Amino acid sequence: MRMHDLVETNQTKMVLLVMDGLGGIPHPEHGGRTELEAAKTPNLDALAERSALGMHQMAVGITPGSGPAHMALFGYDPFQHVIGRGVLEALGLGIQLEKGDVALRGNFATLDAQGKVVDRRAGRIDTDEARGLLSRLHEAIPRVEDVEILWVPGKEHRFALVLRGPGLSEKVGDTDPQKTGVAPKEPGAQDPEAEKTARILSDVVRRAREVLSSHAHANGILLRGASQLPHLETLEDRWRVRAMGLATYPMYRGIAQLVGMVTPYVETFEEALEKLRQAWKDYDFFFLHYKDPDKKGEDGDFEGKVRAIEALDTMLPTILDLGPTVLMVTGDHATPSLYRAHSWHPVPVLLHGPFAGADGLSPFSEKTCLRGSLGRVATGVLMRLIMANAGRIRKYGA
Amino acid sequence: MRMHDLVETNQTKMVLLVMDGLGGIPHPEHGGRTELEAAKTPNLDALAERSALGMHQMAVGITPGSGPAHMALFGYDPFQHVIGRGVLEALGLGIQLEKGDVALRGNFATLDAQGKVVDRRAGRIDTDEARGLLSRLHEAIPRVEDVEILWVPGKEHRFALVLRGPGLSEKVGDTDPQKTGVAPKEPGAQDPEAEKTARILSDVVRRAREVLSSHAHANGILLRGASQLPHLETLEDRWRVRAMGLATYPMYRGIAQLVGMVTPYVETFEEALEKLRQAWKDYDFFFLHYKDPDKKGEDGDFEGKVRAIEALDTMLPTILDLGPTVLMVTGDHATPSLYRAHSWHPVPVLLHGPFAGADGLSPFSEKTCLRGSLGRVATGVLMRLIMANAGRIRKYGA
Repeated sequence: MRMHDLVETNQTKMVLLVMDGLGGIPHPEHGGRTELEAAKTPNLDALAERSALGMHQMAVGITPGSGPAHMALFGYDPFQHVIGRGVLEALGLGIQLEKGDVALRGNFATLDAQGKVVDRRAGRIDTDEARGLLSRLHEAIPRVEDVEILWVPGKEHRFALVLRGPGLSEKVGDTDPQKTGVAPKEPGAQDPEAEKTARILSDVVRRAREVLSSHAHANGILLRGASQLPHLETLEDRWRVRAMGLATYPMYRGIAQLVGMVTPYVETFEEALEKLRQAWKDYDFFFLHYKDPDKKGEDGDFEGKVRAIEALDTMLPTILDLGPTVLMVTGDHATPSLYRAHSWHPVPVLLHGPFAGADGLSPFSEKTCLRGSLGRVATGVLMRLIMANAGRIRKYGA
Repeated sequence: MRMHDLVETNQTKMVLLVMDGLGGIPHPEHGGRTELEAAKTPNLDALAERSALGMHQMAVGITPGSGPAHMALFGYDPFQHVIGRGVLEALGLGIQLEKGDVALRGNFATLDAQGKVVDRRAGRIDTDEARGLLSRLHEAIPRVEDVEILWVPGKEHRFALVLRGPGLSEKVGDTDPQKTGVAPKEPGAQDPEAEKTARILSDVVRRAREVLSSHAHANGILLRGASQLPHLETLEDRWRVRAMGLATYPMYRGIAQLVGMVTPYVETFEEALEKLRQAWKDYDFFFLHYKDPDKKGEDGDFEGKVRAIEALDTMLPTILDLGPTVLMVTGDHATPSLYRAHSWHPVPVLLHGPFAGADGLSPFSEKTCLRGSLGRVATGVLMRLIMANAGRIRKYGA
């Protein structure tokens, strides 16, 4: 079956609302409830009753990072389409990567007189001080040969390095030895096509040491995770939709761009909703990303995650008022505050539309979603469910 | 994704308790209940309430043999990793197979004067008498060329034949014609590499007829299912765990050995529990095999299976007292006493651990497990769930 042959277009509007880290597990110190069960969500609960519910997960027992989780949500096999570490870091720092760019994760590090790594994080150098050093590096090393060098500030000792120019390859090794007491490695080419990239990186590292030589702690750099944008069929090519992604965090805008979404800058979720309203006529599919539940889950802040979910609930009517044909509300993965991290647990999903059915189950929670008519599905099929419910997938076979 | 890259080690203790043949179907003569529903299992019920429940099956509609069922439980694809009939028979008879050994199932048979098979089972010759014949065969044919011949007694007319030596191959045909009125087949090589094995088997069969010529019924042997140990990645290689398998039946110890478990001899399940206690500090993962429910199910003995489950329940506290981080209680397949055999039905599974969640469902039964948060999963993913719940699988992607 080639999905593309079954796709048809129409005037429907589809919204995929992702509450990052939505899924939870019962917390023994909070009445054995999950955050979603504890939250007061009258709008989601009312919608749930008129919707189809279910649970999804990327793969049983596997905890997804944000990249794979969103690849799966957008309908791409996350095990086949890998977003490299360097690319994800650069996207997260807001760089608009271009085709052919090579992105790497960078650390400021402390090297001793023999050039051996003493501290891989340069004493967790202050973010502002690191920015100053990156400015100096940018001035001193803006380009090597015909390749532009972008020095992108991150937090503390972290930065992203982006090479932009012809003939680059991601097939180069890390310089970061991942331990102390040894010298950084040479960025060796793992492929003949990568020799130019390795040569340029070697030059960048050498010259960076000269520029940084006078600094007490941050006198060297370590690079790892060289990667290029994966080649992905766009949502437009696959589904014949105009797609917009609205996310306040650069990384999610970046991932949305990878699959061809237009991703205007928005500072807050309220701004995202305003943008949604403004762009409503011009796009078919909208991805709305709401970050807060994940942040609070990672902090182990049960009550904070509850409040984040409740805050989203109050904004739900704004989306409903636009009259989406199909609305899916779900998370990308679980981030139970009990676990304080992304986890492998399944994630509740609500699908609302004229032909989605109504399970009559309420409230919107892990327990009700377990009993819903969508059943337990792989994250990777959700996009297909949205399109089917929008009447955009033709019958297969006569 | 290479699972190995995501694995990390820690100090957790994991127990997989397999109640062989646990799954059942409602029995119309026993109040429409399954054996698990009819059994009084206060300890399992209390644990169920604080655990995640679900159902698993190897493949919809497929009835697993013990080999495939345990392969799947241990996380190996049972359709890819096939344990040959001869190997399974030899393991079941307690032989420690070595790499390169070729194992076959053997029958004593009755041949007529023309050498045609009259009775494939030699009148179901008595076990002790068969043992005597196997001793004689061992004395007469301990070796052919540079290959050692092991004659391993089984029940009645059944035995296993093991060839041990250099250059052997499993690619040889059966001598057993599977019907009477025809002569046994020559053990032909199905591959040039198997010519030595075929030659040796041919010699064994011929000389066995000479040794047995004076016996009234058991005057010949039939061989089938030549097979060698499959090459399997060990649990240690895959999960970086030290694994112990505790089973009273040789076949289950044999299968556990195939995936690299240490399998001390235990006579009873009580001894297995004592061994578990003694070895607790030295291993990370424990497989505990409890045979009785399957035996009673195959006998069509509903009440017997109920009592077997109840007996296990009384021993559960001994396991809980050790404080396993993660405990999974399940079966390898269903053996409904109504069906009197292994069946394709799904099997209840209970997963207990600090991040498994608590479904609040009790008692431990097919009906409650159907509603559990684990959902319906393939047997093959259970090992991954155990490892995830023990915090031994890192996040996939950033």
